[in-house]
Amino acid sequence: MPEFDFESLKSRYSRFLSKRDCSKTLIKFWDAPQGDVIEMAGGMPNAGFFPVDSIDVHVCDKPFGQRSEDGLVAHMDRNEPSDMPLSTSLQYTNTEGMEPLLKFARNLTQKIHPPAYDGWDACLVMGSSDGLYKVFEVLCDEDSTVMMEEFTFTPVISSVKIQGGHVVPVKMQLSADPKMQGIDVGLMEEMLDNWHVGPYKHLNKPKALYTVATGQNPTGMTLSAEKRKQIYRLAQKHDFLIVEDDPYGYLFFPPYDAENPLKNAYWEQDSSLTPQKYIDEFLVKSFVTIDTDARVIRLETFSKMFAPGLRLSFVVANKFFTERVVNIGEVSTRAPSGVSQAVVYTVIRELGKRHAAEYENPIDAMFAGWVEWLMKVAGTYTQRRNIAFKSLYETESYKQGLFKVMEPSAGMFIDLKPVWSQEDLAKADHFDHIMEEMDQLNACLIKSGVQVVLGYRMAVDREASKDTCDFIRVTIAYAKDDEQIVEACHRIGAGFSQFFAQRQK
Amino acid sequence: MPEFDFESLKSRYSRFLSKRDCSKTLIKFWDAPQGDVIEMAGGMPNAGFFPVDSIDVHVCDKPFGQRSEDGLVAHMDRNEPSDMPLSTSLQYTNTEGMEPLLKFARNLTQKIHPPAYDGWDACLVMGSSDGLYKVFEVLCDEDSTVMMEEFTFTPVISSVKIQGGHVVPVKMQLSADPKMQGIDVGLMEEMLDNWHVGPYKHLNKPKALYTVATGQNPTGMTLSAEKRKQIYRLAQKHDFLIVEDDPYGYLFFPPYDAENPLKNAYWEQDSSLTPQKYIDEFLVKSFVTIDTDARVIRLETFSKMFAPGLRLSFVVANKFFTERVVNIGEVSTRAPSGVSQAVVYTVIRELGKRHAAEYENPIDAMFAGWVEWLMKVAGTYTQRRNIAFKSLYETESYKQGLFKVMEPSAGMFIDLKPVWSQEDLAKADHFDHIMEEMDQLNACLIKSGVQVVLGYRMAVDREASKDTCDFIRVTIAYAKDDEQIVEACHRIGAGFSQFFAQRQK
Repeated sequence: MPEFDFESLKSRYSRFLSKRDCSKTLIKFWDAPQGDVIEMAGGMPNAGFFPVDSIDVHVCDKPFGQRSEDGLVAHMDRNEPSDMPLSTSLQYTNTEGMEPLLKFARNLTQKIHPPAYDGWDACLVMGSSDGLYKVFEVLCDEDSTVMMEEFTFTPVISSVKIQGGHVVPVKMQLSADPKMQGIDVGLMEEMLDNWHVGPYKHLNKPKALYTVATGQNPTGMTLSAEKRKQIYRLAQKHDFLIVEDDPYGYLFFPPYDAENPLKNAYWEQDSSLTPQKYIDEFLVKSFVTIDTDARVIRLETFSKMFAPGLRLSFVVANKFFTERVVNIGEVSTRAPSGVSQAVVYTVIRELGKRHAAEYENPIDAMFAGWVEWLMKVAGTYTQRRNIAFKSLYETESYKQGLFKVMEPSAGMFIDLKPVWSQEDLAKADHFDHIMEEMDQLNACLIKSGVQVVLGYRMAVDREASKDTCDFIRVTIAYAKDDEQIVEACHRIGAGFSQFFAQRQK
Repeated sequence: MPEFDFESLKSRYSRFLSKRDCSKTLIKFWDAPQGDVIEMAGGMPNAGFFPVDSIDVHVCDKPFGQRSEDGLVAHMDRNEPSDMPLSTSLQYTNTEGMEPLLKFARNLTQKIHPPAYDGWDACLVMGSSDGLYKVFEVLCDEDSTVMMEEFTFTPVISSVKIQGGHVVPVKMQLSADPKMQGIDVGLMEEMLDNWHVGPYKHLNKPKALYTVATGQNPTGMTLSAEKRKQIYRLAQKHDFLIVEDDPYGYLFFPPYDAENPLKNAYWEQDSSLTPQKYIDEFLVKSFVTIDTDARVIRLETFSKMFAPGLRLSFVVANKFFTERVVNIGEVSTRAPSGVSQAVVYTVIRELGKRHAAEYENPIDAMFAGWVEWLMKVAGTYTQRRNIAFKSLYETESYKQGLFKVMEPSAGMFIDLKPVWSQEDLAKADHFDHIMEEMDQLNACLIKSGVQVVLGYRMAVDREASKDTCDFIRVTIAYAKDDEQIVEACHRIGAGFSQFFAQRQK
């Protein structure tokens, strides 16, 4: 396994840094206490000034459950837990995150997505939006170009543009075939090989690819291991970094069985789905696992699998890059909320206590407890996916062939595409008016009582994606229960019917 | 009272915005749900996916106390408190902060520091470092100049410099006289009036003054009401903004009584110090209270009076500026931790419950409970100040006239100055070597077993402040108890003795 020390990473990757990052200076006026001294330097209030004696978090160990049956309570006070008591977590803490939680994040990464080199690290950030802002602040200048999947979480574009940078879409294959899904590697290669004569020749060659590689937002597509390797080889050949945003990776869907629509591999009785099998066979390996060059920056968040209100994510990258990200925090946000860190850490620790007997090292028990929770959440999403598919496939408008389902392989989203008639498709200008058409569809869906997202609004370049942006994004994450998903799917069916009825007039 | 609507603020203050701020675009792909629809749009997990059933925060209602005697517990679950239940605070929330806490912040500001115009607002940020970073991102370009007190919390310089901006020190009067303390207004006026022939003529005239106006860090000085008026008039005349950072304002010290050193106005039995008197007579009014132009940006933090680990502050400014600050959050940090917001809100609400009977509106009870807590903390700091002064004045080295105490009027810090001999002062080059001298003093202090901060390390421009940077900053905030403060003061005394003994050799 390649090994990189800090200096070699620095000499290898400094050329990727933005001018703004390079000009950044940290001004510190204090020193760490030296030896056995009374600390009268730092402007920190003693923990005795905090109006909090203790915090008890009653853990809920299954989705949509009440308190766990064995009454798991994450307890914190000025001394507990000993490695992250309130007197620490409510105090000023290290910008990169508190060590016990960082250790957990590193351990999780090593076990699920082991990087292919030595010399990586993790740092905490305030959610992945904050993480991406910092990453692009480290990387982007006015003359920087970042590639993105042609449909993406478009607010990320703002994070590049505020640095003055430019974004360029890469075409995707929107396919049900797991081998085909996601970035069209052939077109990407062609674009890069012919950059200086291509449509983006006025821009510099890309410094980075931003990708949601698993359960992509909004398409639900997942890049196969083979495609990841091909893309990584392109990154080496054309020397760009890969920024992998992975909020949905744990929400992997087993294949849908139309004969047995409610079948759920996560929930089968005598289940053969062990945590190890989930990790080895269900979860798709991150780009970091093939990253022999240390050129991948991975973002993982607690937002989807724990709670968004925590504002807590972590960045995994080579330790030169994590230090740059932390340094931006030093002059801006400082550390993520210590309360959030304490809640996440103690709740996961509590979830792990059931496994305490199995493992010598508490961090392994925490890992086991956390993966168990991830599987419960993924199982519930799979149930929701099943119900949504079943309900959609049962609608009259589906049976009439008015829309198709772009079956996702992971994540929170199901995308639906109207099926245009041969007549429509024969018109040379059909896709010139696609946004107006989709707005019409949207109006019908709202009239039917369902709010969705229009695919074209998530296009990096609407014109460049006009032939494929005719889909709507539906989330199964927010509905209050299965019944509401069924009802929403009926309404969606009704909306499509109304749309096509209206068009015929 | 002047009234400004958003458009008039925009036309008045747009010229202060940085190019980076102006070029910022927010890209949103979703709409707020319209009417009675099922929300299948936003990528938010349902609250049922959060592994938290409820949180109980056991409140400590006096500094260094245990749980409050009447057992105050801030309870949160999916439905409680009704205006900020966990299902909301653990979810994605508004970038500007959750409304109940914002309302509390606005109410607090209106009651203690009522702005002198209509058209202001408040927004939450992730601590004042984050707030200042965002404020200077809104304001500063490569050609921007920001004035700062010559001694300051120097990491703020980084927040200006990362934008490419420049900082310029303004001279201070380091005086025990409350009328004289802080910024030397005469020199400031002279500097501004003669900018184009002065030492900073290569820079643009300042866009803003950054000031810690009360209990200044590191000097403990407080600008009098009269000086604030004079500075405000200068801001009008030379058209700059005032960025007021106020972490220490509530920690006001009553005058020290050498005859009765442990006298503490906060703690007297039959105390005549009511909350109203504390607000009216002790607390120094913010610059916003004289801000008829809407040109002041005020930052108040929960770090010192609640806990730093929350990473929670709020910015008070005209609503055009608060919107700009929030917009930076939209493309970077998003909202502050919902867990932090919930803990602060519910704990203060709990502290207010004792006053529920006195007020019709719960927000007034919260205010009363919070001010009561502030006074308890300020009282404890006053006790610590008293003990520190008494102990310092009792040291041999003080009695021998080896050092002076720069008595602070508020805050966390006490600064001490070595007293140089007439002989030293007569040397033309005495202050040319002042940093080496102070390093020597520091070595003696560390050898005596106490860690302090050197004043010169908090100078904006060491050369420009060389005649007055010969002080050390000592904090009374972090010591674990009164005894440790006494011990630290003894060690400080010993350090000074050793320093001067060494110099004589």
